[in-house]
Amino acid sequence: MVFTARSEPARAAILAAARQHFTRDGYERTTIRAVASEAGVDPAMVMRYYQSKPGLFSAAVDLDLHLPDPTGLPIEQAAGLLARHFVTRWEGELADEAIMIMLRSAVTNPTAADRVRAVFGGQVVTLVRAVTGDSPDSELRAGLISTQLLGIALCRYLLRLPPVAALDPETLIAAVTPVLEQFLTGPLPAAAETDATRTASARHDG
Amino acid sequence: MVFTARSEPARAAILAAARQHFTRDGYERTTIRAVASEAGVDPAMVMRYYQSKPGLFSAAVDLDLHLPDPTGLPIEQAAGLLARHFVTRWEGELADEAIMIMLRSAVTNPTAADRVRAVFGGQVVTLVRAVTGDSPDSELRAGLISTQLLGIALCRYLLRLPPVAALDPETLIAAVTPVLEQFLTGPLPAAAETDATRTASARHDG
Repeated sequence: MVFTARSEPARAAILAAARQHFTRDGYERTTIRAVASEAGVDPAMVMRYYQSKPGLFSAAVDLDLHLPDPTGLPIEQAAGLLARHFVTRWEGELADEAIMIMLRSAVTNPTAADRVRAVFGGQVVTLVRAVTGDSPDSELRAGLISTQLLGIALCRYLLRLPPVAALDPETLIAAVTPVLEQFLTGPLPAAAETDATRTASARHDG
Repeated sequence: MVFTARSEPARAAILAAARQHFTRDGYERTTIRAVASEAGVDPAMVMRYYQSKPGLFSAAVDLDLHLPDPTGLPIEQAAGLLARHFVTRWEGELADEAIMIMLRSAVTNPTAADRVRAVFGGQVVTLVRAVTGDSPDSELRAGLISTQLLGIALCRYLLRLPPVAALDPETLIAAVTPVLEQFLTGPLPAAAETDATRTASARHDG
C-alpha cells in the first residue's frame, strides 16, 4: 500500500510521457525505452507497472468518446447534437491526445484496432439505441455514423486535406449534420436486394 | 540502354517486393533491406534505382484513383456512379494494394500524407468540376466527398468495424449514394454565419 502511494508520481510521469510519444510518433515508433527516458525512470519500472507496450497503450489512452446523452431530446435534434459533440471532442473543450493516438495507432496496429472496434461497437451503438430505440438496424446505423465521423477525423486532423482542415467548426457541423441525420434516423437499404439497391444497380450497369 | 533493358526484371522484382512490404507492414516498418532481400537483389541496387524509401514508395505505389468520367451523365446519376466506382476501386476489378498502402502510410508518414492530399486535391476536384461545372465550392465539395469515401475505406478495409465490413457491396453503395449526392450537388453551408449553422447552433446552445 505504501508502495502504491509512493509509485503514483512515477506512474503519472510514465503515462504523461507515453501519451506524448504515442501522439507524436504513433504506436509503432513509440518504445518503452523512450517513454521511460522521458519520464525519468528505468524501463524495467515501466514493464513492471504496465507489462508491455500494448498494456502501456491501454493505460495511457482514454478511449471514452464522451458521447452526449440524447435522452429527452427531440429525435430531429440528435444528429446536430452528435455533430457538435464530435467537433468538441476533437478540437474543443473535450479534446485530448487520446483520440488522436487511438486513430493513428489503429491503422497500423491490431491491438489498437481491436480497441477502436470495441469503442465504436459499444459507445456509438449505445447512442443510436438511446435515440431510435433498440432495433436490428442499430449496429449498422452506428457503423455508418462511424464512417462519416472517422472520415472527418482522418481528413481534418490527420491528413489535413486543405478544404476540410480549413472549415470553421460551425460550417463543419452544418455540413455533416444532414449526413448523420440520414444514418441515424433516415431510411436504410435493408439488404442487397432492396428496391433502392436494385435501382442503383440498374442505373449504372447498362 | 542495354543496362536499362537488363535492369527491367530487377526493377519489377523490387517494385513487387516493395508493394508487398508496404501493404503488409505499412510505410514505417518497411525497410530497403527487407525489400531488397525479398527481391533477391542487393540493397545498394534498390538505392541506385530509387534513391530513398520515399522514392521507392512513390515508384511502387500507383495513386491513380481511376475516377470515372461523368461527362454526359445526368447529374442525378453522378453520386451513384461515384459510389459504385469507389467500391470497385477498393474491392472489385480495379482493386490493388496501392490504395491500401497509401491510406495506411499517410496516417503516420508526412511524405505519404502529402501524396494523398495531392491526389484528393487533384483527382476528386476534377471529378466534381466535371459534374457541377467550375465553382468556388468545388474544392469544399471534393473535400467533403473525401471524408465520406476515406471514412468508409478506413472503417471497412482498415479497422474492419463489423457492421461496415459485413455490408454487401450493393447495400454499401445504396447507403452511401445519398451522402455523396448531398456533398456533390446538394446545398452547402456557405460559411459560419449561414442560416443553417445559426439554427444548428441555436438548437444546442440553450
